[in-house]
Amino acid sequence: MRYEELTIEGRNAVLEAFRAGKTIDKLFILDGCQDGPVKSILREAKKYDTIINFVKKERLDQLSQTGKHQGVIAFAAAYEYAELEDVLELAKEKGEAPFLFILDGIEDPHNLGAIIRTANLAGAHGVIIPKRRASGLTATVAKASAGAINYTPVVKVGNISNTIEELKEKGLWFVCADMGGQTMYELNLTGPIGLVVGNEGSGVSRLVKEKCDMTASIPMKGDIDSLNASVACGVLAYEIVRQRINMK
Amino acid sequence: MRYEELTIEGRNAVLEAFRAGKTIDKLFILDGCQDGPVKSILREAKKYDTIINFVKKERLDQLSQTGKHQGVIAFAAAYEYAELEDVLELAKEKGEAPFLFILDGIEDPHNLGAIIRTANLAGAHGVIIPKRRASGLTATVAKASAGAINYTPVVKVGNISNTIEELKEKGLWFVCADMGGQTMYELNLTGPIGLVVGNEGSGVSRLVKEKCDMTASIPMKGDIDSLNASVACGVLAYEIVRQRINMK
Repeated sequence: MRYEELTIEGRNAVLEAFRAGKTIDKLFILDGCQDGPVKSILREAKKYDTIINFVKKERLDQLSQTGKHQGVIAFAAAYEYAELEDVLELAKEKGEAPFLFILDGIEDPHNLGAIIRTANLAGAHGVIIPKRRASGLTATVAKASAGAINYTPVVKVGNISNTIEELKEKGLWFVCADMGGQTMYELNLTGPIGLVVGNEGSGVSRLVKEKCDMTASIPMKGDIDSLNASVACGVLAYEIVRQRINMK
Repeated sequence: MRYEELTIEGRNAVLEAFRAGKTIDKLFILDGCQDGPVKSILREAKKYDTIINFVKKERLDQLSQTGKHQGVIAFAAAYEYAELEDVLELAKEKGEAPFLFILDGIEDPHNLGAIIRTANLAGAHGVIIPKRRASGLTATVAKASAGAINYTPVVKVGNISNTIEELKEKGLWFVCADMGGQTMYELNLTGPIGLVVGNEGSGVSRLVKEKCDMTASIPMKGDIDSLNASVACGVLAYEIVRQRINMK
């Protein structure tokens, strides 16, 4: 189990968490607070590129579970993140071509959990999520993943486009889920592959889309715009699974 | 738009709702209440096979939104249900072999909404849900369906097994989603078909499974048990879509 505590309150506790190498997803600091310990915390936060929010006392009181926040509350990863190398190593150990999910801004923790669950069962070696404007690994995600979070590594990266570039150099191809693309059945989705799925509302961002080698669309016959993000991800992932099975 | 109000409170309002033909999903009545109007309501409820709950005053007060429930609260369908004939008619109008989703006890309204969304986009002609032990069409379902609820007819039936029998006589084949079955890629899923998906926890019930012609499984490589119900339904539905496209 990779379970960690979820909120950390108070100056020493937060500073210790940073120094112990814990992944802090978000930091809330009392607006105007400038003393020594708070400055140390801010220095650590900048080092790890943590998102910092300066807020009023009322907001901190609201967020606090202990009532003793001392002007500082941190949200730590409920589960620990993996490194990109771990994911590639996992594929290598299994003797399989790497198969990754790259999530460009999934915001709903239920969707993120369901997608990690799909990644596990479709045989993907890991899930990559961005640091900003996306759901991190919270207790809700863990629950929605039905335990998959304990098996499938999740990597958090600063910049999705850069990570795609890095993985391209290691031989991966990238297919982006988007309505404008070719029907998924017509594409060759075998080999080392990264499946890129976008935000629930706005889809895959332009910059990330430009980095992808292919755009795959799911055939749609209906009256509305798009599938639920975790359903769309599942449908595309299983087209990859089908092509991988057929190749054997 | 087929939007209707969600809770109806008070004796006259509830009685009127029944007489106007509204679909009442659930009825809460003050335990021990036996006067004329309540007896009339109970008579109507039995006629339409509505689920009746006799509860204490505290529970009614808790459920009440107006504070004036007079011992009677009804939960009406947020959206109106269709008839089985409407669904078959829709397939006929489009000149397509019928393609239905049969949900044997989906409880989570987010899953139900996502599944109706998938039904719409996969070109299914309707969704069948059971009267009991399942989510009905609530406001949460409507939202999660992303509007699909306005286009794809949803039919509520008393007994899923009987409905399958009835539809078999009209030429439909039934494929049940279950782990024990043959891999979905190996089955012939073309022609008039009903896709049967079970409850989130317990899957398809034994009686319903016995009525099905085939059992299809999704290949699973991972460490956990099963996909999220709406993801599994999406993956299977799109295997049907793929086979239908290939046939042309």
